[in-house]
Amino acid sequence: MSRFFSKKYSSLVPYTPGEQPKDMQYIKLNTNESPFPPSEKAIKAAGEMAKTLQLYSDPECRVLAEKLAEALGVDYSEVLCTNGSDEILNFAFMAYCDDDHPAAFADITYGFYTVFAQINNVPYIEIPLKDDFTIDANDYIGINKTIFIANPNAPTGIALSREKIEEIIKSNPNNIVVIDEAYVDFGGESCVPLIKKYDNLIVTGTFSKSRSMAGARLGFGVASAKLIQDMNTIKYSTNPYNINRMTMAAGVGALEDKEYFENNCKYIIETRKYTVEKLTELGFETLPSSTNFVFTKHPTVSGQKIYEELKSAGILVRHFTKEKICQYNRITIGTKEQMDALLSKLSEIVK
Amino acid sequence: MSRFFSKKYSSLVPYTPGEQPKDMQYIKLNTNESPFPPSEKAIKAAGEMAKTLQLYSDPECRVLAEKLAEALGVDYSEVLCTNGSDEILNFAFMAYCDDDHPAAFADITYGFYTVFAQINNVPYIEIPLKDDFTIDANDYIGINKTIFIANPNAPTGIALSREKIEEIIKSNPNNIVVIDEAYVDFGGESCVPLIKKYDNLIVTGTFSKSRSMAGARLGFGVASAKLIQDMNTIKYSTNPYNINRMTMAAGVGALEDKEYFENNCKYIIETRKYTVEKLTELGFETLPSSTNFVFTKHPTVSGQKIYEELKSAGILVRHFTKEKICQYNRITIGTKEQMDALLSKLSEIVK
Repeated sequence: MSRFFSKKYSSLVPYTPGEQPKDMQYIKLNTNESPFPPSEKAIKAAGEMAKTLQLYSDPECRVLAEKLAEALGVDYSEVLCTNGSDEILNFAFMAYCDDDHPAAFADITYGFYTVFAQINNVPYIEIPLKDDFTIDANDYIGINKTIFIANPNAPTGIALSREKIEEIIKSNPNNIVVIDEAYVDFGGESCVPLIKKYDNLIVTGTFSKSRSMAGARLGFGVASAKLIQDMNTIKYSTNPYNINRMTMAAGVGALEDKEYFENNCKYIIETRKYTVEKLTELGFETLPSSTNFVFTKHPTVSGQKIYEELKSAGILVRHFTKEKICQYNRITIGTKEQMDALLSKLSEIVK
Repeated sequence: MSRFFSKKYSSLVPYTPGEQPKDMQYIKLNTNESPFPPSEKAIKAAGEMAKTLQLYSDPECRVLAEKLAEALGVDYSEVLCTNGSDEILNFAFMAYCDDDHPAAFADITYGFYTVFAQINNVPYIEIPLKDDFTIDANDYIGINKTIFIANPNAPTGIALSREKIEEIIKSNPNNIVVIDEAYVDFGGESCVPLIKKYDNLIVTGTFSKSRSMAGARLGFGVASAKLIQDMNTIKYSTNPYNINRMTMAAGVGALEDKEYFENNCKYIIETRKYTVEKLTELGFETLPSSTNFVFTKHPTVSGQKIYEELKSAGILVRHFTKEKICQYNRITIGTKEQMDALLSKLSEIVK
């Protein structure tokens, strides 16, 4: 830290992204990337758009946002596209959290929420998951705070029903509820339809996982037009041209290739089922996943040891050191071949 | 504004980007874009990278930042790449401005500085330009504030010498000085070499103008390693994967094509000279420009009228309503053909 750095941020602990070691070629099952390339339509559209990069991107992101709105069954005015879903989450922390509106989220969830709260200097509470790692909706009923729920949750993979979420939204009519649906396409129930009914709901999503576009940085928020307006005020006060032209084009291409998207999601869900079965045969206990990853532990071999031995064998998974979950590893669902390589190595580690 | 929007931002007035009307095909001379496409190397690299978008981009931006550092004659640890230069400017406002460190900048300069100050809730002062629209370096000597200077300045186009800027930096050793060099490649003197000498200097730059990549969103900051660390703390607390894979690849490609870059800058400088001469013949008074635009007014026809008549003729220029400059228009230097179309129309408007 330099001697000039503002005291506001002196105790800030930034987010730690999943490791990206470059010492060898790994099987990467640590950052929940898709094992499939993006749609051919996305690749082609992005490559074509690269020829006109001398022109600014459309700050309204009109073409993409209209296409996305159509796919989600909402209006253009109810959508905001962002530079990854981290950006829309930060916008929500900025716009709807302050001393009078503390943030509330689970103690085990996306690790960035605490960082967003800290950088925006807003108070927050962490609500413990139940012993089975599920969210107890009752803990969020009428709590009068700005609520952030990853659904399905990460790194547990467990989904909460739309019915339960609706109870939470309904019971906090004077507070914003943000449902972070990064993983919803792998088996969760989306809350997007509820934005027509509740003016206090924001649903966020991403093209990173189910649409194979993590490297394009494309996220979005869906909410009533007034909330989208608020977050546009933040956007136009920080980075109006937040999305580049190639990513916009790739996003449109991806949305036009519905079949590819659906087939890839189906493949991941089937491969997840297969992986969980095989893990169970090896003695692993795996939480019920509705995502493109599994959260799993072994009764006798420590999470740390499994992580390390996999890494030396060239397989990267994600391990968290937080006490409540340090026995677990979060493993991305890749291709069947990648999962077989993983399972084969795991069988050696736990034998 | 929704009833939920935090009071913190209730009086925020967002930045207004240059208009992008879609009702007809305009000659766009209003957003300082390059008239040339990006380098073939940039286009090819970006298109190739689109095939691997399923993978996250490198949050360290290693390959690009190393290449850029080499081009600038600094170390990798002294460079930070961002999602456009607006992002690095916002990082600087966040990291180095607070109640004890108010911001200071010219009254006529990049309009986003006041917005950045407001969204970060920091006090700021606007220092009037001299009557000839130049910056008086004496106004900044030992003022004990976080200083932002666009150099060359926008929308005036006027550059301050490195010598004068060094005096400002030297006289404010306990405050950060940010030199925003978005337009430096068209005739300014870069302050990048000074970062080795002063630990309180940040130089920002962009690939938007001289490298024809406005639509790729690529900016950067150059400073001592400690300042870069501070701003990385902000980056990793807001959006670690701030730059997408295609833009990184395009940036590397652009840096590899030095000849194309230099030729384009030369062309713009020559066309600017030609344009200013012709404007003078038509009676216009044009400020001395070191950028890819000119700031010009006519003694008898109002700036507003010129802007409007050009627009109805299919030529977009940028007009500002601020009293001190409302007689002027900011006109981007395009191709010689575009400038001839502009000049021909102007000769009708002022005849």
